[in-house]
Amino acid sequence: MQIQYVLEVCGTGFFAISGSLAANDKAQPDWFGASFIGFITSIGGGSLRDILLGCYPLVWVHDINFIFAVIFGVILSSIFFKILIRLRRTFFLFDTIGIAMFTIVGTEKAISFGVHPMIAAIMGMFSAVMGGVIRDVLTNEIPIIFKKEIYATACLAGAICYLLLDHFGLERNVNFLLSAAIIISIRIIAVKKNLSLPKFIKGD
Amino acid sequence: MQIQYVLEVCGTGFFAISGSLAANDKAQPDWFGASFIGFITSIGGGSLRDILLGCYPLVWVHDINFIFAVIFGVILSSIFFKILIRLRRTFFLFDTIGIAMFTIVGTEKAISFGVHPMIAAIMGMFSAVMGGVIRDVLTNEIPIIFKKEIYATACLAGAICYLLLDHFGLERNVNFLLSAAIIISIRIIAVKKNLSLPKFIKGD
Amino acid sequence: MQIQYVLEVCGTGFFAISGSLAANDKAQPDWFGASFIGFITSIGGGSLRDILLGCYPLVWVHDINFIFAVIFGVILSSIFFKILIRLRRTFFLFDTIGIAMFTIVGTEKAISFGVHPMIAAIMGMFSAVMGGVIRDVLTNEIPIIFKKEIYATACLAGAICYLLLDHFGLERNVNFLLSAAIIISIRIIAVKKNLSLPKFIKGD
Repeated sequence: MQIQYVLEVCGTGFFAISGSLAANDKAQPDWFGASFIGFITSIGGGSLRDILLGCYPLVWVHDINFIFAVIFGVILSSIFFKILIRLRRTFFLFDTIGIAMFTIVGTEKAISFGVHPMIAAIMGMFSAVMGGVIRDVLTNEIPIIFKKEIYATACLAGAICYLLLDHFGLERNVNFLLSAAIIISIRIIAVKKNLSLPKFIKGD
Repeated sequence: MQIQYVLEVCGTGFFAISGSLAANDKAQPDWFGASFIGFITSIGGGSLRDILLGCYPLVWVHDINFIFAVIFGVILSSIFFKILIRLRRTFFLFDTIGIAMFTIVGTEKAISFGVHPMIAAIMGMFSAVMGGVIRDVLTNEIPIIFKKEIYATACLAGAICYLLLDHFGLERNVNFLLSAAIIISIRIIAVKKNLSLPKFIKGD
Repeated sequence: MQIQYVLEVCGTGFFAISGSLAANDKAQPDWFGASFIGFITSIGGGSLRDILLGCYPLVWVHDINFIFAVIFGVILSSIFFKILIRLRRTFFLFDTIGIAMFTIVGTEKAISFGVHPMIAAIMGMFSAVMGGVIRDVLTNEIPIIFKKEIYATACLAGAICYLLLDHFGLERNVNFLLSAAIIISIRIIAVKKNLSLPKFIKGD
C-alpha cells in the first residue's frame, strides 16, 4: 500500500502540472488562477469518485501531503514552463502514467465499497478523467475526452481488465502493474497511430 | 413502489437517449463521448439531489439496472438516430413524461428525509432538470432552462401541487398521477402556445 | 453565534442579488432563470464546502430562512434593478463584506471538523468564491476569479490571518472582525489601485 500511496501523491503532483499548463492557453490566469485550476484538475476526479461513493473524509481533506504535491507541481510548472512545453512528449508519458494509476486505484477503492464491478470500472475511469473534465469546463472548453484519441476508453478498458484478472485470482500487485500497462499501451498506440473511436453519428 | 421503480429506470433510459442525441449537435463526440453525456444527463439530476440530501448510496451506484438502462438508451439512439430526430414530437412527449416522473419521485424522496416542503419541491425540480443543466455545461451551451418555454417552472408547480394535495390527504398513487399530469399539461400548453416566463429585466 | 447566523443569512441574500444581476448580462434569463442563478450563486460555495467536508445536512437544506433570503434578494434585484446597477459602488461593498464573512465562517466550520489549517483556509475561500465560479460556468463565462483584481487571494489571506491569530489565542469575535477587515481592506485597495497578481506566464 505504501508504494501506491507514494504513486497517488506523485500522480496528484503531475496532474497539477498538467492542469496549470493547460490553464494558461485560453483563460490567461494569474498565479492564483493557475494554482486553482491545477488544484481542481488534480483533486477533482478523486473527489467526485469519493462523493459519489459517499466515502468520507475525502483523501486530500485529511492528508495535507496532497496539497503539498499540488503546490509543488504548480511552482514547478511556473519555473520550468518553457522546458515543460518543449518536453510535451515526456509530459504525455507522465499524464498517461497518471491516468493509468488513478484508474486502478479508483477501481480498487470502489470495489472495496462493495459496488458492482461495472460501477467500479466507471468510478476508476472517473478518478482518472473527471479532473480534466472539470478543468475544461472551468476554462470554457468542450472537454477533450469527448473527442480525443482513445483516452477515457483506455481507462475503462484497463479497469475492466483489472476486475477480470482479479476475478480469476491474479495477485493484486501483479494485476495492478499489468492493468496499468494495458492502459498505457492502448493510449500510446492510439496516439502514435492516430486512432480514435468512431464518431457517434456518421455523415452530415 | 414496484411501478415507480420501473418508471424510474425507464425514465433514466429516456434521458440517456435525450442526452446522447443533444450531445451530437455541437460537441461532435465519439461513441464514448456520446455515452458519457447520455450517462451524465440521465443520472446527474438524481445524483445531485442525493448528494445534497446526503442520501447514500446513490441509486445508480448500488443498482446496476440504471447503468443497463443508460447503455440501452445510448445504443438505441445511435441505431435509430435519424428516426428519433424525425420523431421529435413523440420524443418531446417522452422527455416531458420523464421530467414529470422524476420531479414527483424526487419530491417524495426529499420529503422522506424530513426537509421543509419548499426544499422538497426544489429537490424534485433538481432531480428533473439538473441532468440537462450539467449536459449543457459540458457541451459548452448556456443551459436552456434559463430561457426555454416554461420547463423547470412546470416541475416546480407540479411538485408544489403534489405537496399540497399530500397535505390534504390525497391517496399517494392518485396524487402521483395527478401531479405528473399537471406538469405534463403545463409543459405541453407552454410549447403549443409558445408561452414563456417574462424576461427578468425588460427593456434594452 | 446568533450574530453570525444573522450575518450568514444576510450574506446569502446579498449573493442572491449579485447572482441575479450578473446573470442578466449574457444569458438573458427569464424570471426562473435569474432566480435559479441567484440561488446557485448564494448557496453554491457553502454547499460545496459542506459536501467536501461531508458535513450534513447542508445548511440551507434544513433551514428554510436561507431560501427566504434568496427569494427576497431576487425580488429586490428585479424591482430595484436600475438603482442597483447605478449603485455598483455600494454594491461592490456588499459583495466584499459578503465574501469576507463567508470566508471566516467557512474557515471556522472546517476547523471544527478537525482538518489541517491549510485545508481550512481553502475551505473558507471556497465558501466565499465557488458560488460565483458556478454562476460563471452556468452562464458560459470564464470564471472571473482567474484574472480579477485580487479576489479569492484576499479571502485566502484573511483565512490564514484568522487561523494564525486564533493559534495565538486571540478572542474569537475580535478575530472574526479583524480578519474580515483584512479581507475587505485588501480587496478595496486592490480595486482602487488596480492591483492584480502577476500573470502565471509572462511574455507571448
